[in-house]
Amino acid sequence: MHSESASAPSRRDLLALIGTVAGSAAMYEAMTALGLASESGYKGPIKLDGDPKGASVLVLGAGLAGMTAALELRKAGYTVQLLEFNSRPGGRNWTLRGGDSFVELGGIRQTCEFEQGLYLNPGPWRIPYHHRAVLHYCRQLNVALEPFNQLNHNALLHGSRAFGGRPQRIREIKADFQGHVSELLAKVTQQGKLDEAVAKEDKELLLQALKSWGALDRDFAYRANLLSGDVRGFAKEPGGGLDAAPVPGEPIALSEILKSRMWFYLRNFALHEFQTTMFQPVGGMDMIGKAFAREVGDLIRYDAKVTRIQQNDRGVTVSWVDTKTPDATLEAVADWCVCTIPLSILSQLPVDVSAPMKAAIDAVPYMPGVKVGLQFKRRFWEEDEAIYGGISYTDLPIRQIAYPNTGYNQSGRGVLLGAYLTGGPNAFEFTSLPPAERVARAVEFGAQLHPQYRTEYENGIAVAWHRVPFTLGCAGAWTDAPRAQHYSNLCQIDGRIVLAGEHVSWIPAWQEGAILSALDAIGRLHRRVVNT
Amino acid sequence: MHSESASAPSRRDLLALIGTVAGSAAMYEAMTALGLASESGYKGPIKLDGDPKGASVLVLGAGLAGMTAALELRKAGYTVQLLEFNSRPGGRNWTLRGGDSFVELGGIRQTCEFEQGLYLNPGPWRIPYHHRAVLHYCRQLNVALEPFNQLNHNALLHGSRAFGGRPQRIREIKADFQGHVSELLAKVTQQGKLDEAVAKEDKELLLQALKSWGALDRDFAYRANLLSGDVRGFAKEPGGGLDAAPVPGEPIALSEILKSRMWFYLRNFALHEFQTTMFQPVGGMDMIGKAFAREVGDLIRYDAKVTRIQQNDRGVTVSWVDTKTPDATLEAVADWCVCTIPLSILSQLPVDVSAPMKAAIDAVPYMPGVKVGLQFKRRFWEEDEAIYGGISYTDLPIRQIAYPNTGYNQSGRGVLLGAYLTGGPNAFEFTSLPPAERVARAVEFGAQLHPQYRTEYENGIAVAWHRVPFTLGCAGAWTDAPRAQHYSNLCQIDGRIVLAGEHVSWIPAWQEGAILSALDAIGRLHRRVVNT
Repeated sequence: MHSESASAPSRRDLLALIGTVAGSAAMYEAMTALGLASESGYKGPIKLDGDPKGASVLVLGAGLAGMTAALELRKAGYTVQLLEFNSRPGGRNWTLRGGDSFVELGGIRQTCEFEQGLYLNPGPWRIPYHHRAVLHYCRQLNVALEPFNQLNHNALLHGSRAFGGRPQRIREIKADFQGHVSELLAKVTQQGKLDEAVAKEDKELLLQALKSWGALDRDFAYRANLLSGDVRGFAKEPGGGLDAAPVPGEPIALSEILKSRMWFYLRNFALHEFQTTMFQPVGGMDMIGKAFAREVGDLIRYDAKVTRIQQNDRGVTVSWVDTKTPDATLEAVADWCVCTIPLSILSQLPVDVSAPMKAAIDAVPYMPGVKVGLQFKRRFWEEDEAIYGGISYTDLPIRQIAYPNTGYNQSGRGVLLGAYLTGGPNAFEFTSLPPAERVARAVEFGAQLHPQYRTEYENGIAVAWHRVPFTLGCAGAWTDAPRAQHYSNLCQIDGRIVLAGEHVSWIPAWQEGAILSALDAIGRLHRRVVNT
Repeated sequence: MHSESASAPSRRDLLALIGTVAGSAAMYEAMTALGLASESGYKGPIKLDGDPKGASVLVLGAGLAGMTAALELRKAGYTVQLLEFNSRPGGRNWTLRGGDSFVELGGIRQTCEFEQGLYLNPGPWRIPYHHRAVLHYCRQLNVALEPFNQLNHNALLHGSRAFGGRPQRIREIKADFQGHVSELLAKVTQQGKLDEAVAKEDKELLLQALKSWGALDRDFAYRANLLSGDVRGFAKEPGGGLDAAPVPGEPIALSEILKSRMWFYLRNFALHEFQTTMFQPVGGMDMIGKAFAREVGDLIRYDAKVTRIQQNDRGVTVSWVDTKTPDATLEAVADWCVCTIPLSILSQLPVDVSAPMKAAIDAVPYMPGVKVGLQFKRRFWEEDEAIYGGISYTDLPIRQIAYPNTGYNQSGRGVLLGAYLTGGPNAFEFTSLPPAERVARAVEFGAQLHPQYRTEYENGIAVAWHRVPFTLGCAGAWTDAPRAQHYSNLCQIDGRIVLAGEHVSWIPAWQEGAILSALDAIGRLHRRVVNT
């Protein structure tokens, strides 16, 4: 079924062959040359060889999935048109800057008051290095990237009932937990309690490794000394000249860390999805959407709200209205349709598809998500606290405070992500509040981590995705059971309609999922076209 | 003795007072407001109040220590002059670009052939977020910063006798070691073997924490599954559309990791010195030196080689020669001298200082260090291998390959740090080779990690610090015994002479040490001047 495996050996097949014939060293070279070790979901620039014979495609939605499809289909010789609900390209690929305004469900309009150059990405905000498709298009379309900092060792972990409400530095919790774990395991290794699990010849190596990895002293203890200071930081940092020797701080006891539950956050810094090197586009995430629109903008009809999707043996007819003159219903026709409308909205439209696909469209709930951007008079997190980018985590309803990963060490105003809520009743509760109240709460809660909020706050803006008219939610919330039952049906070419978007992927909520699903959909669609 | 404690309560004293009077919550707020948790060696912008009464200072060396001293002393009202051996400011704060050339000991001249925009920092190349003095001057002098990536999860670990010589991805060694350690500790916890060390009420929490932190499954095992894939990456990454489910890879056995000794490198990613968020100046490290020179360049006499330093009750006389016309010896005189000449060179000059200071000057050996920059036709590490910045480590003589932390995802040529050797016979052996041979070896060894070297290499340049005439070594290599015996003597104001530089600090080899030592030295010097 896969797009490339039918016509040519896959890279995996090729590697297996090379491994068999030439041994592992040659295979490694081949893997390197082929751009592996692990196999990406992205197979390299798509090749749509063969004549589309004048076929036309109507693409619904000018987000990254829709614009990818439009870009590649036109290049392959199709006649393409694109309908987009918003007055701008990108969809959830979206950046809010001073002067931008938008209306959420319920009719409240917010206007962003950020100073020029500052912004909030309400939707996607980071690009993992292994999202090869996004990176390919960024390169092809000249979108400049800069690092996104997920783990800042000097950012904060905060538990409202831990350590008397005092935030802790990530580096201390991280180093101390690892140190204590290493000490415990070293002790039982020395006591012979691991004899069943660890071979005798490995025991000494394990002790050496734990000592190095856990910053243990010669007694295999994790203690206040220069060794632990070298990983957790010092109470007094080393300096220059006289009186400059470093002074180590006292590690936090294991029991305190366990009870604080702050170990829970350490996982956020280990996940493959968030590993270095991550990226963000310089100037805002919508630089990607804008770059796509430079290529396919001439194909896009903006302010077009789809109201119905019909198909028969000969083609597809989509009814739509211009949202600025909504009384007249218009029609667009094409031989084929690539539909990237979020399932949260598509499930509410009359759509001519098979029962299994309709069931799939109806089966996927959408994650709630709320982001609040806050502008401050100065970058106090850098100036006062040496926090440059990255994320602080808290159990307060705001969940996260993320610091800008750009403009480091400069004077002037700055914008924080003052709240980022996904999933759960907490996100729904925030969504239910009027925007001004969301912002006010973000300021109030955030001041528990950064008292400077009280004097430095200037203005804010809050996007609650369940009230955003063009998605009614943040992203497709797949779980195992609906995935097993419906995912494959959702991916099929149903007559003359095929779906694409992050919801038609195994990487929901990520732009990579949107692009890969579009490439997979148009690859299969194209073969159907050229083979009939 | 400390610069601020005599006149005003230190921040530490203030905090202790607040803690005593107002309790820990108030203390946290105060700490935040004061820019702590940990106390930096940098005390904020230096205040040299009081009249220097027309005193003059001769500063030797226009590296960061010397230029910091010159900048602040002139601002405080001193008459300052600065003698510098090189024809440029910065000293070890140095960047090589296409067209630059330099002559090393032995007379060999190398000319850099890098394409415009590419560079090598032969000396310092990274700035930790807690190096507050460097960051202060970067901000004050408008030096733009961008992140330096120390840990790139997708970079390589390579052992010539491990895994058949095949490099491993850092993320796999890192995640697998942590997973196995967690599994082992979870097992003994469940078996009751930790009952002495861990309180009963903490046991369940410890198990939960290990499960989360170590990516263990419901049986507390670390295995090939989606959980381990989420931290180590997948054999096949999740994709979009059909046939897009992720496929986990098999974790590397603990015994294999232990025997590979690759755990040794994990420490490089945990050290406080290398923790996120690190920085590099945009465009090259010498942007800092050039920024200082914009302020104090008018005070600098370049090409000035100091040959003798004399002092008496009334002042200091320094003999020097112009390196372009070395036959005539010239003299510079001043009331005071701040000498930042590296000890490796100063110890060879006749200097009028006390016996204890002379002994200190002679006591500190200098670390060997070699860096090799290599230009390639294309950024194959990004294009083929998804390695964006960061460092690969190997047990080969080159030790490290570091990828550029700028210009990510762009087409065209790139420069790698193809070798970075510090300390040990290996560095001396490389130093003893002619530069072209150092470069050739870096290419030959590097090809074991990146076979693309063989076709993509274009040109290279090699700096071996023991053959660099202005330092004769990389940095002061303090160890405990000489530190205990000599460090305090080295810091003293000896008559009218005081030393500064990274060698007069607890942070040797770091620019922060150079600047902090200069601030400490001129602070004490100034008090002596205003109090006499």
